[in-house]
Amino acid sequence: MREVFQQELREVQDGLVEIATLVAQAIDKATRAFNESNVSLAEEVIADDHLIDQRAQALDELAITILARQQPVARDLRITVSALRISASLERMGDLAMHISQLARYRFPDKVVPKSLRPTFHEMGALDVEVARQLVELLRTQDVTIADEIRNKDDQVDELHLSVFEKVLGETWKGEATATVDATLASRYHERFGDHAVSIAQKVLYLATGDWVPEPA
Amino acid sequence: MREVFQQELREVQDGLVEIATLVAQAIDKATRAFNESNVSLAEEVIADDHLIDQRAQALDELAITILARQQPVARDLRITVSALRISASLERMGDLAMHISQLARYRFPDKVVPKSLRPTFHEMGALDVEVARQLVELLRTQDVTIADEIRNKDDQVDELHLSVFEKVLGETWKGEATATVDATLASRYHERFGDHAVSIAQKVLYLATGDWVPEPA
Repeated sequence: MREVFQQELREVQDGLVEIATLVAQAIDKATRAFNESNVSLAEEVIADDHLIDQRAQALDELAITILARQQPVARDLRITVSALRISASLERMGDLAMHISQLARYRFPDKVVPKSLRPTFHEMGALDVEVARQLVELLRTQDVTIADEIRNKDDQVDELHLSVFEKVLGETWKGEATATVDATLASRYHERFGDHAVSIAQKVLYLATGDWVPEPA
Repeated sequence: MREVFQQELREVQDGLVEIATLVAQAIDKATRAFNESNVSLAEEVIADDHLIDQRAQALDELAITILARQQPVARDLRITVSALRISASLERMGDLAMHISQLARYRFPDKVVPKSLRPTFHEMGALDVEVARQLVELLRTQDVTIADEIRNKDDQVDELHLSVFEKVLGETWKGEATATVDATLASRYHERFGDHAVSIAQKVLYLATGDWVPEPA
């Protein structure tokens, strides 16, 4: 019984790694679509989002089946419950990649943000892609040092997010309302993406070390 | 054993009703703080958000204890797992009420949005408050007709959310970038609040009827 459980738990873990990999691909394509105004990449992300949703739903069903059949306790129970939460966050990260793509598609053939903001969004996008890739590694290896790196990168994303507002609200900002709205939403999506990664990293860290780190607001 | 389980399940349900009640109070205060530029109400929501977080965390612990001790299966298992998901959404709704309050505090003594948008935000806020109150009722009574009403109101919130963008991007918009950014974020927070309510309503509906309604993007 114990062996079956360990096998099923590995399936859950593999499932999370798989979904995280799809999310990393989605944010990679989404940020390229956004930065390069590539509408076909944007369409791809939008069309493929349901695959992430499906995998997340299948993983939830697997976790619930494990709860019912194996009736895990203690740490095994917490791993299974955490898998449900992690899959919910991954699903949401996929949605955010889709929202970034939708902005790119909506403004095509124009770029979403004016020149003055592009380096900032390039950097923010690159950090989100790195964060997503590190999340894949963290879920695969449970190497807790990666959790720190993710948090570190998320702090950088947060700073860039604030700097977008500083630019948009600064005296040199010449953007129309459209550009202001788009920059605000796009920046928010990039920032939330990092938040979800940190939230997942904290759950993995908690399982690995037993330390409880409260959720950020 | 079965009786203990039913008793514990009632505790979970009571816990969800209690958290939803706090969320309804938070959004009521937050929208008043926002619409009337009432900084002390805003401070209250911000200071009290950790109470929602604490209750949500305590409820999660209770649900996990039930999973460990009672090892529920079938419908009982799904109720317990759903409670975990519902508490996560409620916690997030509390965060959104806090974000709305933070905008109000940040712009105090000014109002967050210019006159032309105030009726729209009044309406959106009133709908969010109604949605939150109906969520309390839905969780208390499991009356599935309430789920339809929540979805209905959320559709209205979505329309108002779009109308904010139409106004902000329209020719008559005279707002500075600050007003544009604030209106964009505020409208997004109001809209997400409704989305979470619908997501919870779908979970309750699913438990009550067995119909699986996929999550909206």
